[in-house]
Amino acid sequence: MPVTRVDLSQNEFPEAWFNIVPELKGFAPPNATEEEMALLKKVFIPESLKQEFSLEPWIPIPGNLRDLFVQIGRPYPLYRAHGLEKELGLPSGIELWYKAEFRSPPGSHKLNTALAQLFFAKENGIDRSVAAQGGRITTETGAGQWGSSVAFAAKILGFQEVIVYWVRNIYNWKPARKAFMELYGATVIPSPSPHTQAGRDVLAKNPDHPGDLGIAVSEGLEDADSHEGSFYVLGSVLNHVLMHQTIIGLETLKQFESVGKLPDVMVSCLGGGSNFGGFVLPFVPRRLDGGNMRFVAVQSKSAPNLQGEFRYDRADHAGKTPELMMYTLGHETEFAPIKAGGLIYHAAAPVISHLRHMGIIETLTPPLDEVAVFEAGRLFSQAEAQAPPAPESAYSVWGAIQEALDAKQKGENRIIAFNVSGHGLMDMDAYAEVLRK
Amino acid sequence: MPVTRVDLSQNEFPEAWFNIVPELKGFAPPNATEEEMALLKKVFIPESLKQEFSLEPWIPIPGNLRDLFVQIGRPYPLYRAHGLEKELGLPSGIELWYKAEFRSPPGSHKLNTALAQLFFAKENGIDRSVAAQGGRITTETGAGQWGSSVAFAAKILGFQEVIVYWVRNIYNWKPARKAFMELYGATVIPSPSPHTQAGRDVLAKNPDHPGDLGIAVSEGLEDADSHEGSFYVLGSVLNHVLMHQTIIGLETLKQFESVGKLPDVMVSCLGGGSNFGGFVLPFVPRRLDGGNMRFVAVQSKSAPNLQGEFRYDRADHAGKTPELMMYTLGHETEFAPIKAGGLIYHAAAPVISHLRHMGIIETLTPPLDEVAVFEAGRLFSQAEAQAPPAPESAYSVWGAIQEALDAKQKGENRIIAFNVSGHGLMDMDAYAEVLRK
Repeated sequence: MPVTRVDLSQNEFPEAWFNIVPELKGFAPPNATEEEMALLKKVFIPESLKQEFSLEPWIPIPGNLRDLFVQIGRPYPLYRAHGLEKELGLPSGIELWYKAEFRSPPGSHKLNTALAQLFFAKENGIDRSVAAQGGRITTETGAGQWGSSVAFAAKILGFQEVIVYWVRNIYNWKPARKAFMELYGATVIPSPSPHTQAGRDVLAKNPDHPGDLGIAVSEGLEDADSHEGSFYVLGSVLNHVLMHQTIIGLETLKQFESVGKLPDVMVSCLGGGSNFGGFVLPFVPRRLDGGNMRFVAVQSKSAPNLQGEFRYDRADHAGKTPELMMYTLGHETEFAPIKAGGLIYHAAAPVISHLRHMGIIETLTPPLDEVAVFEAGRLFSQAEAQAPPAPESAYSVWGAIQEALDAKQKGENRIIAFNVSGHGLMDMDAYAEVLRK
Repeated sequence: MPVTRVDLSQNEFPEAWFNIVPELKGFAPPNATEEEMALLKKVFIPESLKQEFSLEPWIPIPGNLRDLFVQIGRPYPLYRAHGLEKELGLPSGIELWYKAEFRSPPGSHKLNTALAQLFFAKENGIDRSVAAQGGRITTETGAGQWGSSVAFAAKILGFQEVIVYWVRNIYNWKPARKAFMELYGATVIPSPSPHTQAGRDVLAKNPDHPGDLGIAVSEGLEDADSHEGSFYVLGSVLNHVLMHQTIIGLETLKQFESVGKLPDVMVSCLGGGSNFGGFVLPFVPRRLDGGNMRFVAVQSKSAPNLQGEFRYDRADHAGKTPELMMYTLGHETEFAPIKAGGLIYHAAAPVISHLRHMGIIETLTPPLDEVAVFEAGRLFSQAEAQAPPAPESAYSVWGAIQEALDAKQKGENRIIAFNVSGHGLMDMDAYAEVLRK
């Protein structure tokens, strides 16, 4: 088997994040009351909030933060998937390439924005009482990848306290991830919890409520609001989060250019939209300028939010957040639990939703039982000699395979790029359970 | 925090393995009966056996195998441990550097020799009946890192069947590693087992026997012997295994040379000796030539084999293997189970034992409860922004810290290099359990 691994040197790591908002004509701002904006200003990291509303196309990445990205191994390689191509029997005109985002120490791309947000929290925290003494961070997590990344980044940057509200039905079957977060000093609380009014309201109606990311967001926000000096951080959906993730796509673009190619189609999984956005946004201007590059979001059958309505909706269950213009299934909807818990969220990021509304983003959904998805993940790992992908990332692999088989059936040439956003080394029980079916 | 990550390009990956045996005056050969040699010739991969007795100083690495090492991400970086140095308050003359061997997809350095052995098994297998149809591999594993690497390598290279005999007391608490091996199609059997005479003999005396690596070796060997066309592979102790691991030290040497430095002392954990040997052997000729570089093996209090007797002993419990000249605690000894199961073996590799006998290798052992070891592992991960080290690799970190503190106390300058041979992402429960003490 030939090997094509496109490396970048340390000094080729991007110097600035790409902000697509200025290029999106008619991009709808949040619909926020004064009270809602006051809450955001109280609990959000000032620099994050500034970036959220920025219209600058490029936001410089501070040098000390760039060093941290080199420390965690970036830039990550781009691989040609020769092994997978061979397994699928693809003709030479159909190429598969993947970004090795699974190289991240805590296991996923979520670390990219966790490091950025907490880096600024530390810089901005100097004027805040508790933060000045070490800092307190609250957040929520679904699959546990975001909670792991926040716990990891917070410890590395020297924060004192991290509180993670974790969707209960996922918390229950991921003891290794819980141990991981606790190893870095985080306090992990299954959500809905009795610690917040938002949690108590849900529990009053259903004491066995399995939890939901929207509820966990409400709890994290309320916790930060009620503890002076706390910062609340979010791992997806918002503009600044997707912008932090553009280092994935910016590296990928340089890597493709270095081999004199560009993808015809880019594929990745989409829950809230952060890995998908980070991967594709740096390529989107080519499409806006009249190119014909395609972008395919792979979603779960349980929560295919890009197939919902395009309207203003809340980002959380309790309705504490401003309304955002999004494709949504409704912020109070309950979803069937799946193993790829990171793909369960009621709405897609405003930036992604806007592009979807423009007809630029397509969607694909595999069957609800996830057997085909986990089989794709196993095939990828075995054919490519890489760690097994996270359940969410296995959706990316599944989607890329559909694109390749479609091109083969149609007799077309196609260069397909996909992002493997995380590894599944802490999800081995999910592989065992699903593939035993 | 400054960042120093020394990368090598893909084409700087070593072109040959380093064989130290020709440089070891008076190195004792195995003490083998004709029957024992016949068994080895029957079940060992012919090329491995040839390498085992080779007196060539350099053995070329085939090009297709070098490609596989690039595919799994090699060469791996060498890092200056700036964060750990800061945590320990080291003066500027004391430097800590570590090799990121934990980048391996299945989690440890064991993949280096698994890929090499199975690559040759495939090449050599063409003349063997079952092997020609896809191949059957038997082996044993202690901590599960070797079993994971064999399962992974075998699937990637297209073998049909892998049987792993796994020390029972470790098998019982590592369901994630079991799922990992099974994901790659391996059959995993707790040892001692009723499948072999060696296993039945042990079970007859004690039906609840917790297992031991020497017993598992006997079972793997007997299984291969009784199934036509099977190859048996071993993950440590033997000359060719340590030689395959020298890619670790060869990369490290190039990396140090590229920054114009050399370590004063090299530290790594030692069970059978494969990661330790692979790391230090390429540096040993400098010591043999009159230099004063030091080599420190960190061992468990449960099985400190380098503190045993230097004599001929068996490599397995049932006595099927030839006798090897080793530091040994006796091949029928039972050891107290610890979390770093990979450090439990009754004897050290002949090459390592020879160097120990020459006075070239020192040893260190932390307390049996392993709390200090896991704390060192956690400190490393938090200070260096890397995945938590495997329990075994945490011994390396612990040992490197002792060296740094010793130099600090003595007011000496010292450049300390240590190998972090694997990650602990599938050992999070061990971290939780030990650090709760």
